[in-house]
Amino acid sequence: MSNKMWGGRFSTGPDAIMEEINASIGFDQRLFAQDIAGSKAHAAMLATQGIVAGEDVEKIQDGLDTALSEKALAHAATVMPGFTHLQTAQPVTYGHHLMAYVEMLARDRGRLRDARARLNECPLGSAALAGTSFPIDRDMTAKALGFDRPTANSLDAVSDRDFVLETLSAAAICAVHLSRFAEEVVIWTSPAFSLIKLSDKFTTGSSIMPQKRNPDAAELVRAKAGRIIGALTGLLVVMKGLPLAYAKDMQEDKEGAFDAFSALSLVIAATAGMVRDIEPDTARMKTAAGQGYSTATDLADWLVRAAGMPFREAHHVTGRIVALASDRGIGLHRLSLEDMRSVDERITQDVFSVLSVTRSVQSRVSYGGTAPSRVRAQAKRWLKRLQVEAAKA
Amino acid sequence: MSNKMWGGRFSTGPDAIMEEINASIGFDQRLFAQDIAGSKAHAAMLATQGIVAGEDVEKIQDGLDTALSEKALAHAATVMPGFTHLQTAQPVTYGHHLMAYVEMLARDRGRLRDARARLNECPLGSAALAGTSFPIDRDMTAKALGFDRPTANSLDAVSDRDFVLETLSAAAICAVHLSRFAEEVVIWTSPAFSLIKLSDKFTTGSSIMPQKRNPDAAELVRAKAGRIIGALTGLLVVMKGLPLAYAKDMQEDKEGAFDAFSALSLVIAATAGMVRDIEPDTARMKTAAGQGYSTATDLADWLVRAAGMPFREAHHVTGRIVALASDRGIGLHRLSLEDMRSVDERITQDVFSVLSVTRSVQSRVSYGGTAPSRVRAQAKRWLKRLQVEAAKA
Amino acid sequence: MSNKMWGGRFSTGPDAIMEEINASIGFDQRLFAQDIAGSKAHAAMLATQGIVAGEDVEKIQDGLDTALSEKALAHAATVMPGFTHLQTAQPVTYGHHLMAYVEMLARDRGRLRDARARLNECPLGSAALAGTSFPIDRDMTAKALGFDRPTANSLDAVSDRDFVLETLSAAAICAVHLSRFAEEVVIWTSPAFSLIKLSDKFTTGSSIMPQKRNPDAAELVRAKAGRIIGALTGLLVVMKGLPLAYAKDMQEDKEGAFDAFSALSLVIAATAGMVRDIEPDTARMKTAAGQGYSTATDLADWLVRAAGMPFREAHHVTGRIVALASDRGIGLHRLSLEDMRSVDERITQDVFSVLSVTRSVQSRVSYGGTAPSRVRAQAKRWLKRLQVEAAKA
Amino acid sequence: MSNKMWGGRFSTGPDAIMEEINASIGFDQRLFAQDIAGSKAHAAMLATQGIVAGEDVEKIQDGLDTALSEKALAHAATVMPGFTHLQTAQPVTYGHHLMAYVEMLARDRGRLRDARARLNECPLGSAALAGTSFPIDRDMTAKALGFDRPTANSLDAVSDRDFVLETLSAAAICAVHLSRFAEEVVIWTSPAFSLIKLSDKFTTGSSIMPQKRNPDAAELVRAKAGRIIGALTGLLVVMKGLPLAYAKDMQEDKEGAFDAFSALSLVIAATAGMVRDIEPDTARMKTAAGQGYSTATDLADWLVRAAGMPFREAHHVTGRIVALASDRGIGLHRLSLEDMRSVDERITQDVFSVLSVTRSVQSRVSYGGTAPSRVRAQAKRWLKRLQVEAAKA
Repeated sequence: MSNKMWGGRFSTGPDAIMEEINASIGFDQRLFAQDIAGSKAHAAMLATQGIVAGEDVEKIQDGLDTALSEKALAHAATVMPGFTHLQTAQPVTYGHHLMAYVEMLARDRGRLRDARARLNECPLGSAALAGTSFPIDRDMTAKALGFDRPTANSLDAVSDRDFVLETLSAAAICAVHLSRFAEEVVIWTSPAFSLIKLSDKFTTGSSIMPQKRNPDAAELVRAKAGRIIGALTGLLVVMKGLPLAYAKDMQEDKEGAFDAFSALSLVIAATAGMVRDIEPDTARMKTAAGQGYSTATDLADWLVRAAGMPFREAHHVTGRIVALASDRGIGLHRLSLEDMRSVDERITQDVFSVLSVTRSVQSRVSYGGTAPSRVRAQAKRWLKRLQVEAAKA
Repeated sequence: MSNKMWGGRFSTGPDAIMEEINASIGFDQRLFAQDIAGSKAHAAMLATQGIVAGEDVEKIQDGLDTALSEKALAHAATVMPGFTHLQTAQPVTYGHHLMAYVEMLARDRGRLRDARARLNECPLGSAALAGTSFPIDRDMTAKALGFDRPTANSLDAVSDRDFVLETLSAAAICAVHLSRFAEEVVIWTSPAFSLIKLSDKFTTGSSIMPQKRNPDAAELVRAKAGRIIGALTGLLVVMKGLPLAYAKDMQEDKEGAFDAFSALSLVIAATAGMVRDIEPDTARMKTAAGQGYSTATDLADWLVRAAGMPFREAHHVTGRIVALASDRGIGLHRLSLEDMRSVDERITQDVFSVLSVTRSVQSRVSYGGTAPSRVRAQAKRWLKRLQVEAAKA
Repeated sequence: MSNKMWGGRFSTGPDAIMEEINASIGFDQRLFAQDIAGSKAHAAMLATQGIVAGEDVEKIQDGLDTALSEKALAHAATVMPGFTHLQTAQPVTYGHHLMAYVEMLARDRGRLRDARARLNECPLGSAALAGTSFPIDRDMTAKALGFDRPTANSLDAVSDRDFVLETLSAAAICAVHLSRFAEEVVIWTSPAFSLIKLSDKFTTGSSIMPQKRNPDAAELVRAKAGRIIGALTGLLVVMKGLPLAYAKDMQEDKEGAFDAFSALSLVIAATAGMVRDIEPDTARMKTAAGQGYSTATDLADWLVRAAGMPFREAHHVTGRIVALASDRGIGLHRLSLEDMRSVDERITQDVFSVLSVTRSVQSRVSYGGTAPSRVRAQAKRWLKRLQVEAAKA
Repeated sequence: MSNKMWGGRFSTGPDAIMEEINASIGFDQRLFAQDIAGSKAHAAMLATQGIVAGEDVEKIQDGLDTALSEKALAHAATVMPGFTHLQTAQPVTYGHHLMAYVEMLARDRGRLRDARARLNECPLGSAALAGTSFPIDRDMTAKALGFDRPTANSLDAVSDRDFVLETLSAAAICAVHLSRFAEEVVIWTSPAFSLIKLSDKFTTGSSIMPQKRNPDAAELVRAKAGRIIGALTGLLVVMKGLPLAYAKDMQEDKEGAFDAFSALSLVIAATAGMVRDIEPDTARMKTAAGQGYSTATDLADWLVRAAGMPFREAHHVTGRIVALASDRGIGLHRLSLEDMRSVDERITQDVFSVLSVTRSVQSRVSYGGTAPSRVRAQAKRWLKRLQVEAAKA
């Protein structure tokens, strides 16, 4: 008697363990509607390209960017502390900070779009690996199924998993971007910072500590980067060193990829929800923006512009003024003109005009700078571009 | 109205997205029986230590090793080609080759055992992070639940995931070992090699090509290394840079770990099944062992021993003899004594006694060498040790 | 006395360990010529974009592709066994096989080109993080330095490392492609396969075994994928969860990236060298192509076309004929017509016309198929395209 | 003329690219003194086991632990806020917090010690792969070179890289631990937290912003985890799917491993330096410890103990009291007894005795808890154990 599955060549059926390790029913169910050709390679291609990545792109586009893109406009003039090394550096605006993520996400979207343009090829007709002798029209099939073109080499078509690897790379980088925003939510909602507040909707309590309000959603967004990087690493390992053409190893492409794309969709949606939900404490932001001698650079710049010092000297003079204020435990603007002149005589009353955080952010008008006028222009440009893209889609 | 879940401090419920990203019901179900303390940290500890790792250790021990262990004994004198760089190097025995994996797996088992000894600590009583003011006996609880001792620092107990990371590391290294064996199964079952044969139980056919017999199980064993390495990488990423104590990020420890340990269990079972199932083609192994001038080193060694040459000179003389045989397209033993003496006059008839593969493997009697006597001794030593361990357990 | 390095604010110098961990002199030397702005962020950007990635693209383009592209044309009709699961599947041509790598490398080149288009932005003028109040023209600077445009957000410009991450992703995928080719070189030069021969130029010997010829270059190409994947993973870990804007963690971007790009350049050059150097053993390739019942699918296809069977039935009938030939230890074309008709009466003498490997490959004329005519057309199309691109550059 | 390097079998020398990709001179120089057998495998083993890992263990042991181990004793009663989710959870002591890292590092040390015990085997005498026919005493050689025993299987000895993989795994987990401490240094030195102060020795300034004091050393410690995880991932990728015995791929084991172990040594030394250097702001720590209703759990516990409530009810009552205090913007201890009794009548004057942070930490006397008495006992136990270990070594 012959084997039902593999035909006349086989005399017995598979081992139970073999069936288990070979099983991909759970994952293949998700592919049912797309499994036109009965080929897992084709189905994986369709699924990854057609459904998951597409949805993600849309979610990024419609959800998160618009939420950022609007909040940034509303807060183009909301002053907050800008950090480097988590130390207060210079005042920036909350809108400017949010717009930094708009730029990152725009690159993420660009990567997914490039991946789609490059990889949206139809493998149907590659047959087992060598092409077929049946007279088929691969262009027609490709078009009918929504692909841009047929794949150009049948061996490549059944052997490669670029379409998953490139999409996973883009997903991993995007997840890292969102993990950075999530980290900021965790830090900024800590009692010491308290720059923003999440509502109960994105906060959980504790079964032991009755007072707790935990930014769990942000922490999970941060953590999911691990899962997505893990999925990328995993598939790179699987594909490394595989001779052509198809090997069963490639069956491993789907589960990790689906899991990673689901995680990414969720992470994007959760971030969009948080962006909309966050209430910045604008008063506290402004106060914090003025602490830590954040306008010291403005003072140094003033010394260059008004007193004609070389920047190196201005930097040094400012450092000594900061040390003076720090010793007294007061801010720069609380020093008297005499105090300042005790360090350098060229300082005049005019210096006080640059020491406020509002003046500081207003002055940064270089392209890409934090000045409210710049931020508003960028936010409007992006909102318009998103509308144009939404109209096209 | 207050929030049912987090008590009097909350006024509204969580966002839908929040619920989704926060969900771990599917994974926590597996933990139900162990979730005595209602704490995910405790449950994860119990589950990972008590169940998964334990089972794996047992599976490695009882299944695969014994299978290797027995096959190696049966094939202690079965000569096959030993490869380096996948080029024929020197003859070895099939039993010796299988015993190499016994050594690797013994180290894998050692790692899991060390992990268990180090990590089998009970976190119960750490409370939220600071310990508790209730008069509890943590030693008693630890003993009752099968732990070796209570954790010594409550902050560490709720913050660290060493017990998963170390176990995943051990799993990743073990998976890499098994991927190497799987690669050999794929190469050795290829028509060009045909050194071994898998039965229909561990082979699949093709829906297109009626003649195919594919070593799918081996390919999946090889591929699962990717998934397990991915899980390890993923959790290392999650834990990197997290301030103490508990953060929700750590919820990500379970899913990847369960998936990886399931994959490892499956991979071990599939490998054990294949080891038992494999039929070595001993005739072909012996023929292949003699090809590729595999006894050239024996010739060089003979020149050192019998003709008193320094090894460097013996190496050079042998190289010239190999080139001579290669030019004629014949093996070393087919050269005449005159042929050999045309390269170096010190060669005598006695040289032919070292050119057979059987003599070659018999001569490697150094500890750890491929001589059948050595392999039998090692195989018996391991079988005995496994029996002793099984009796203890 | 104040600190020379950081100015008036500091009273003592750094700890020795601090200096050591902070050191990046070795790496920064490489950036000297580009370090116009004194900013590491700028320099890394310039270096990665302007030099390394660019060189790699050129190397891929000029070296490897042309070598593949030419060899494929020369061997468009050289029949060899096509494998799936490393089992003989169907005959293909060596040219077709090489062209599969041309497709992969084309996508690799596309990814690097997209990365450059997206990321070739000038951060100069972002200042510390907030932009500057000095009246600068960032468009002019960007143009002068060869960038496409200035970055649009100063916080993003000093915080993000997309330009390294995306380029490393592309490098990792490319390295995986080349590791697959390398694995094939290792397997195909093994004595059992002997489908190709590497000259002494890409082969090493052994200090112990005088007969050895090891494909070391291929093994190193295969191994370098690990290093490049490691560099990608490493930087994803570094960037995960970093709050904006600059943090010293980002200094880690350069060393791993330089190392990975050097490795990639070397790997591409070594692969190009091997592609040119490889001598296919065409006679052995053709013989091997006919073994393992590789034309069984042609027989099944014939049964569909000539005898009008459904494919499922044709597959089954073919399986039984293969089993018959396999039992007798002979190839399909050695069976008599009577033998075939004993399995199915509808088979006629005409069937023997499809059982030769030459006819098999000639029949696969679908777009992307292995037919020599198809392979020649694809090879010419690519050579032309490479010439056009070289002319543009 | 024959090839100087590989002897009579070779007729031409290697390609220039081949030499480049094959080169490991830079790394092998470091191995010179150990390269007794001329075998890279042996040397790598010696180097990794004998030198690098050993030094690391010593550094961990002598440097960092003692520094922690002493600081913890000095600050056993220094109250600070304990965080979960970076939200104030309950008061803990600074000593208790430091002791959590002592526990982590103890496990790290245990892993390195276990690795050494398992892997300190001498491969000398394995020869190329099959053992040797020369009468050698491998026990003698192993002992003479400081190994615990010879390897038991020659194929395994030349094929496996467990000794690097296991040591790298231990290094990666250790680096993750230290990245967590580093993250805390970054957060705690931020102006908003200001719980600790680093001296100028572990702080850098900014060439633009004269007021900056950046915790660069901590950021680099945090970042190095990426490099070490990358090295581990890289070598796992290299080893995955390699058939036995030696392949040139394994040459990749050294560079990444040396780099990772150097990074780890540096990171440990930098952390030890910072631990010694850190000045906790004890007044600010105590104030912060009392904020955020950190003794709410103490209140709930009191309700259980004194008023006999079930914990669920106590949790709910406490939540309402916290909400009441929060609405008024005051701490729990500032509410009047009447205020409290308006929520639940069973509350008595005695409740105020548990609301201070000092009382809170003193009450956590369970084993592993944060009570100063517990922390002192643990710190002394560890200091003694470290002295005993140092005396042994």
